[in-house]
Amino acid sequence: MAKLYGVGVGPGDPELLTLKAIRILQSVSVICVPRSSYDSDSFALSIVEGVIGKAGQEIIPLVFPMSKDKEVTKKFWDESAIIIEGKLKAGMDVACISIGDPFFYSTFIYVFENLKERLKDLDVEIVPGITSINASSAATLLPLAKANERVAVLPATYEKEMLSDALKNYDTIVLMKVNRVFDEVLAVLEEMGLKDNAVFISRCGTEEERIVRDLDLLKGKELDYLSMVIVRKALY
Amino acid sequence: MAKLYGVGVGPGDPELLTLKAIRILQSVSVICVPRSSYDSDSFALSIVEGVIGKAGQEIIPLVFPMSKDKEVTKKFWDESAIIIEGKLKAGMDVACISIGDPFFYSTFIYVFENLKERLKDLDVEIVPGITSINASSAATLLPLAKANERVAVLPATYEKEMLSDALKNYDTIVLMKVNRVFDEVLAVLEEMGLKDNAVFISRCGTEEERIVRDLDLLKGKELDYLSMVIVRKALY
Repeated sequence: MAKLYGVGVGPGDPELLTLKAIRILQSVSVICVPRSSYDSDSFALSIVEGVIGKAGQEIIPLVFPMSKDKEVTKKFWDESAIIIEGKLKAGMDVACISIGDPFFYSTFIYVFENLKERLKDLDVEIVPGITSINASSAATLLPLAKANERVAVLPATYEKEMLSDALKNYDTIVLMKVNRVFDEVLAVLEEMGLKDNAVFISRCGTEEERIVRDLDLLKGKELDYLSMVIVRKALY
Repeated sequence: MAKLYGVGVGPGDPELLTLKAIRILQSVSVICVPRSSYDSDSFALSIVEGVIGKAGQEIIPLVFPMSKDKEVTKKFWDESAIIIEGKLKAGMDVACISIGDPFFYSTFIYVFENLKERLKDLDVEIVPGITSINASSAATLLPLAKANERVAVLPATYEKEMLSDALKNYDTIVLMKVNRVFDEVLAVLEEMGLKDNAVFISRCGTEEERIVRDLDLLKGKELDYLSMVIVRKALY
């Protein structure tokens, strides 16, 4: 059976691709690209457009709708896994590309878990990618951690107590997908006197990159879904 | 004044360099490489050896001794900052290379903070790199986080209560520089019934990479200083 690759393509800037990602994307027969619907563009594909296609690879869009209904999402993951299984069994190496890193808040993890169940002898390799966290830390000139500092990464859905605890016990707190709960997060940061230690970043590493250091400006606004807030206690 | 770059060179495999890191390392006049003593080899330098030097760059070793004495380490950071300041003022672009990412547990952060104090008009750019965390997650086939899962990163020096809290409240817990406190960590994992959810990795991405899933094998042993334990509750 052929080999499956999960390939991280970084946060958006094609220059943040690794040599390994490029080599594998240029060597496989099939490249699977995630999309949120059948007719939407793939952000991940746009990152690698300059390096693939020369060898005539087949490019297959996999649809991962943003839905909270597990039955709906499972149907799409199953469908993707069946497509990939077919290609692997036909002896074709398959690379699935993921924004950032394939094992860090990526839909690839579901496909990977699904395929591991289907194929006991699955041959898989993960190529790590630059995460949006590291790219955002670089873009904002905000170090994530030094020496013995602690880092907490929390996605947007959380309880208030959890957020307060993290803000108390950790030195850097990264709030992912913050768009959905931004005003609530802002209120907690204000309450804890940490508002001035926070920076908002969206679409890091793309042409639409946005960095906002005065969080009040974003109150009540509609925010991009690729956005995060980094809170760092030790500002200099 | 010229420009300072903090360039992440990834965890060890030269193929995990980004295109941007390579472009900048091939364009600057001066490359600073970290060493732990004057006569030791630089691990970071070994990662980029294949891509630099063609343009006749000056390579300057910066010594960052591993010491808990802040007066000692400050002396070395000051010394490094003075060297870099001189090059920048002479109009030479300088790249400081860091294993992994420059803003994630890197000594570059100290040099950066020091230079920011010295030079109010410091022109600096950070090039993010693949962290050892993402590389280790890939090598062990252990996803770090999906959906709304939480991730905690703790360095080796911690209080037991802090570790227990993190193991309770987070889905994935990454313990960095675990070599110094491995037996204590193992005891807490055993107590909390999480020993089988943990994987030990050292020198990820290098020829000496070591992955150990039965942590009991490491009890009482001397471990590499570039080592971590990833604890993931949701094993499949």
